[in-house]
Amino acid sequence: MMHAAVLSIGTELIAGHTLNTHAQYITQKLDDRGYVVDYHLCCDDSKAQVVKSLQFLSKQCDLIITTGGLGPTVDDITRDCIAEYLGLPLVENEVAKRKLEDYFKRRNYKLTDNNYKQTYFPQGATIVVNGCGTADSFICTAGKLTIIALPGPPREMRHVLERSLTHLLIDGVKYSKTLKLFGCGESTVDDMIKDVDSAGTQLGIYAGGGVITIRISAHGDTEEDAKVRVLTVYRAIEQRVKPYLYATEEKTLAQVVVDLLLARGLTIGVAESCTGGQLAAQLTAIAGVSGAFIGGVVTYSNAQKMRLLGVSDKTLCECGAVSAETALEMVEGLIDLTGSDIGVAITGIAGPGGGTAEKPVGLVYIGIAYKGQFFVKRYNFKRDRIKNRQYATLTALKLVRDKIVEEYKLDR
Amino acid sequence: MMHAAVLSIGTELIAGHTLNTHAQYITQKLDDRGYVVDYHLCCDDSKAQVVKSLQFLSKQCDLIITTGGLGPTVDDITRDCIAEYLGLPLVENEVAKRKLEDYFKRRNYKLTDNNYKQTYFPQGATIVVNGCGTADSFICTAGKLTIIALPGPPREMRHVLERSLTHLLIDGVKYSKTLKLFGCGESTVDDMIKDVDSAGTQLGIYAGGGVITIRISAHGDTEEDAKVRVLTVYRAIEQRVKPYLYATEEKTLAQVVVDLLLARGLTIGVAESCTGGQLAAQLTAIAGVSGAFIGGVVTYSNAQKMRLLGVSDKTLCECGAVSAETALEMVEGLIDLTGSDIGVAITGIAGPGGGTAEKPVGLVYIGIAYKGQFFVKRYNFKRDRIKNRQYATLTALKLVRDKIVEEYKLDR
Repeated sequence: MMHAAVLSIGTELIAGHTLNTHAQYITQKLDDRGYVVDYHLCCDDSKAQVVKSLQFLSKQCDLIITTGGLGPTVDDITRDCIAEYLGLPLVENEVAKRKLEDYFKRRNYKLTDNNYKQTYFPQGATIVVNGCGTADSFICTAGKLTIIALPGPPREMRHVLERSLTHLLIDGVKYSKTLKLFGCGESTVDDMIKDVDSAGTQLGIYAGGGVITIRISAHGDTEEDAKVRVLTVYRAIEQRVKPYLYATEEKTLAQVVVDLLLARGLTIGVAESCTGGQLAAQLTAIAGVSGAFIGGVVTYSNAQKMRLLGVSDKTLCECGAVSAETALEMVEGLIDLTGSDIGVAITGIAGPGGGTAEKPVGLVYIGIAYKGQFFVKRYNFKRDRIKNRQYATLTALKLVRDKIVEEYKLDR
Repeated sequence: MMHAAVLSIGTELIAGHTLNTHAQYITQKLDDRGYVVDYHLCCDDSKAQVVKSLQFLSKQCDLIITTGGLGPTVDDITRDCIAEYLGLPLVENEVAKRKLEDYFKRRNYKLTDNNYKQTYFPQGATIVVNGCGTADSFICTAGKLTIIALPGPPREMRHVLERSLTHLLIDGVKYSKTLKLFGCGESTVDDMIKDVDSAGTQLGIYAGGGVITIRISAHGDTEEDAKVRVLTVYRAIEQRVKPYLYATEEKTLAQVVVDLLLARGLTIGVAESCTGGQLAAQLTAIAGVSGAFIGGVVTYSNAQKMRLLGVSDKTLCECGAVSAETALEMVEGLIDLTGSDIGVAITGIAGPGGGTAEKPVGLVYIGIAYKGQFFVKRYNFKRDRIKNRQYATLTALKLVRDKIVEEYKLDR
């Protein structure tokens, strides 16, 4: 069993300004490759602290992954600390230098002297090119110790981590399956699956971003060996969580919906009130969505609901902007406007203001149009503004997904 | 200056199942009391690891705060580790014992033997009663070293931390100022302010969410003392970064814009193509925005640009959907539609597809209407889909902010 540690370097982390999410992310990736992570350590951009941290961790572990401190500023000292700790000189790399100069030239940015720092690496290091930024990453080995230095910005870190991990030995094989659920809480999931015998596997239930992820994994000498154990548990769990299941791989609900739309040649339009563009933004975040997404309106005011969607004055006066009647007229007007196969209208009270005893904060109506059929569903999410908007958006996506799965009699 | 460390103990943390948020929370609380936190360390519920961690941290710090491992189960080993490390026996505490027995009696729970573990403390420890759970906390001192052991569940941890901190000396006062910038990179900021003498303060530059945060802070015996040093540095930096500065407190650009709109009684509407609702979503994330935000349209297809905004067929054919002419017609049509004081239209190529040599991925036109004035700006963000959308959204918000500041001759 190989032992690893994650060393996060940066004032913003140790001073408490930024939450450290890298250590968890890297641990999950190392776990997939059979490593056991023993320590997460975080320290300041201080040479003394970084070197002391490397001394401590190298006594306990075979692999240290550092994050942060690879950039061009004076705070960026990780490369110097690793070189000093390993007793290696820093050597300029011509390929990295050309890449940096090209990068600045293409963007017409001024290449200041401090940027050249990023082209120096400890002698003998393997350089891992950062495809998302200027700070390339590197891997040093000394005896049985391996140190991988990753950049701090999350996107860059994730990208370079993937590339770096291909250089590591895999310690046995790990097989995993994932289930993504929406519409239930962590304790409900716990309760639904508590009688499943998960012996011989690791079972994790994680809540985040409004959805639940169940992860079943097992280590084995061969993939077949690990797979058999994982699939037995997976099938038992899948049965129990079916109503909430929206994917069996790492996908967002928006990605699942866009994939379904594109595969069936279906088009969609959206009309949003309380979610204020969030549903459109989640759909349009997916590359290639222009093949399915026609457009949308954010009808925040009553005037816009009338003007753009033809919601009647009478309905708004008698039933209110947050009502099943308004949601229905919104989605009907939306289909007139976009001519899309599918339409989604959302109207609700996000909070913190605007709630009454009869129509409390968290009340949301979602109207769905599907090829000439119309229906409206009512929800009370009973949360704060951010969560009410998030749940309304995700619920709308789940309704669309379920409707397509039902209409096309898809397995899932 | 007193130096501190946070040691988080627990399998769920080190295995990557649960995100460690305690270290950040405790750091902020310690920072308020004048402590400098040098290390965050996290390890498994393993006696060897916890003792090694205590050895490492006690060499560097005056105060160690541990979280987790105070409960009744076999994994709960923190009290044993601290006692072993300090060479102290564990002694049963009569008051804690009575509290525990009462607690179980009142709830009609069965008091199993393992629960009594929670009534033992290192000899001479100060016991801090946990008002939210059964595991009481304790403070040990040995020479200049203080160790505070807090429970792991977040509510209990926060509650007992407050109580524990009253036992600590306050070590001076801290004063901080923040500058939020948009439109420049981290290295540009570094370059702009590198000649500012920041002696006697801590200066941090952090990039995240597309913006740059500069934080200047200083410790002092009195607030006045720290404030003088911070403000000297703050004023020198403010001068240099003025074109990029959008706030001098922790605020998003959307919040700044909404505050300006509400304070001046201005209304706004948006028309989005490549940002696909993201600008509307960021504005409507702010509570109270309904006083300023009229509505928006997400005109993803050309048909929607014509139908909703009245963009002419001729312009779309001759100049293309991504052009200054289309951006101008979009924002003109938007004002007709919403009647708002301010209008923002965004059209561009987010990528990864859709780019040409003439109109590459990252090209974005932003049209602004301000009380009858209209102008269009051209950008090339040269990034990936996510970043191009993010920068287009933030740039639009910055344009609106700058326009209001200019029109009303605001200081900032």
